[in-house]
Amino acid sequence: MKENFEKLREQLGNATFENYVGLQDGYSEMAYQMVAHVLTLGYATMLAGLLYFVLTINWVAPKYRMSSILSGVVMVSAFLLLYVQSVNWETAFEFNTEEGRYFLAEGNRADLFNNGYRYLNWLIDVPMLLFQILFVITLTKSSMSSVRNQFWFSGAGMILTGYVGQYYEVTDLTNFAIWGAISTVFFFHILWLMRKVINEGKEGIPADAASTLDSIWWLFLIAWMLYPGAYLMPYMGGIGLDGAFFNETGVVARQITYTIADVASKVIYGVLLTVVAQKLSAAEGFDYVKNNS
Amino acid sequence: MKENFEKLREQLGNATFENYVGLQDGYSEMAYQMVAHVLTLGYATMLAGLLYFVLTINWVAPKYRMSSILSGVVMVSAFLLLYVQSVNWETAFEFNTEEGRYFLAEGNRADLFNNGYRYLNWLIDVPMLLFQILFVITLTKSSMSSVRNQFWFSGAGMILTGYVGQYYEVTDLTNFAIWGAISTVFFFHILWLMRKVINEGKEGIPADAASTLDSIWWLFLIAWMLYPGAYLMPYMGGIGLDGAFFNETGVVARQITYTIADVASKVIYGVLLTVVAQKLSAAEGFDYVKNNS
Repeated sequence: MKENFEKLREQLGNATFENYVGLQDGYSEMAYQMVAHVLTLGYATMLAGLLYFVLTINWVAPKYRMSSILSGVVMVSAFLLLYVQSVNWETAFEFNTEEGRYFLAEGNRADLFNNGYRYLNWLIDVPMLLFQILFVITLTKSSMSSVRNQFWFSGAGMILTGYVGQYYEVTDLTNFAIWGAISTVFFFHILWLMRKVINEGKEGIPADAASTLDSIWWLFLIAWMLYPGAYLMPYMGGIGLDGAFFNETGVVARQITYTIADVASKVIYGVLLTVVAQKLSAAEGFDYVKNNS
Repeated sequence: MKENFEKLREQLGNATFENYVGLQDGYSEMAYQMVAHVLTLGYATMLAGLLYFVLTINWVAPKYRMSSILSGVVMVSAFLLLYVQSVNWETAFEFNTEEGRYFLAEGNRADLFNNGYRYLNWLIDVPMLLFQILFVITLTKSSMSSVRNQFWFSGAGMILTGYVGQYYEVTDLTNFAIWGAISTVFFFHILWLMRKVINEGKEGIPADAASTLDSIWWLFLIAWMLYPGAYLMPYMGGIGLDGAFFNETGVVARQITYTIADVASKVIYGVLLTVVAQKLSAAEGFDYVKNNS
């Protein structure tokens, strides 16, 4: 691949590594289809999740319902943007009958493939997901408005710097690393703050609700750590064009990673918050099943 | 760029500066994608906002609910028109593998890019957004019907004259400036009237609700000022073809500006009006959380 790289770089400019692979080696049927399927699974999960969150709003006491509403907001925006991302994959590459592989499409309506749709989706989702937990837990020490503002500031900072960085993933490794590092600083601040919020939230609540909050912490930590992994995916198998992942394997691995992370950090996270809210509601005497029997 | 400009003008007629850039210099991958992402973010936010306004209607006392309904009306119309605007961007330009840039597409299904979709969207949104606040505040001096009629007259006047003006942004700077100036006169009337409405609305209401009304004034002022900025964007960096913004930078800056303005003036404005309505509802003894516990 090396000989042609400079020529490719001229042709594609700042394009993502999905496009370099699609122009140079192309994708096997299996690799191409796996990405198409996993992207479709992603947006279908979001629309299905929307139904769940809307239909279960009244299962929790009124003061917890904003959490379900914000999960719904996240589902709508994620559904639309993941749908567009999926269409982007399908229009960016086309099957070449001679070669038996998928290559970058040419001509009419052929955009290059770009993960930026995901990043700008997160600009809505990340502040909402972080805000959402503040409607379920009760802060014992911190001020609600201070935590919210810190979440929003670092959430937006993390996304915007990561968004800029991903444009350089093939063409400028220095910029890619610098923007990624700045984004990571914001990410660590969010992790630290979330740990604090969950610690405060566990105080004085029933043990089973506190235990679900602990599960939410581990889910949050693991799911959100997948995103920097996906950012670095082209170089996970070694820096450079000969790295084990700078090929269709890396592309498939990245989209699978993104989808697992999206389902975990948006849908499962929202469901677990609803579970905590149901336990707290019951402890406060609000029981949807009994009330409506 | 200058030599070809007269030829371009003949070819494109009244076309927008996005098309001139797309025909002459083309767009880099980064510039093209940033516009595609930000347009997608715009319509996704509107559909997510629709869900929020529908699900929170009952959180305020009945007399304030028309504000949420009108926010919903704005979300539906903005979602559809911004979606069409986004598709318009994707079909107007296509990637040229030789040059490594996006140029104006030719042939099948290639429309020129035009911001007019936005303007005609505002013909619905602007009267609704201005009308909406009159369901949350109580006018102490002015007559409701007089304020409403002035809002609608100047709102429609501002949009229609701006819509005509934007057709001349490249080909006829005199007409561009004259129609823009007339539009601005209507805009100043709206600003003056909104300030008056908010001043009256603050009288006799709880201090925290009055303070949120003040935030709405600043949000309104700043968000609505972004639109004339976007109108003038091709010439923000100097009048003429050599201006710092008569290129892809100006195009990206304009679509980012429009999107920030849309999210602020439609979604955040609506959310803040809901917050005021909740505070007023609580002061009047209507409390969603308590009522449903």
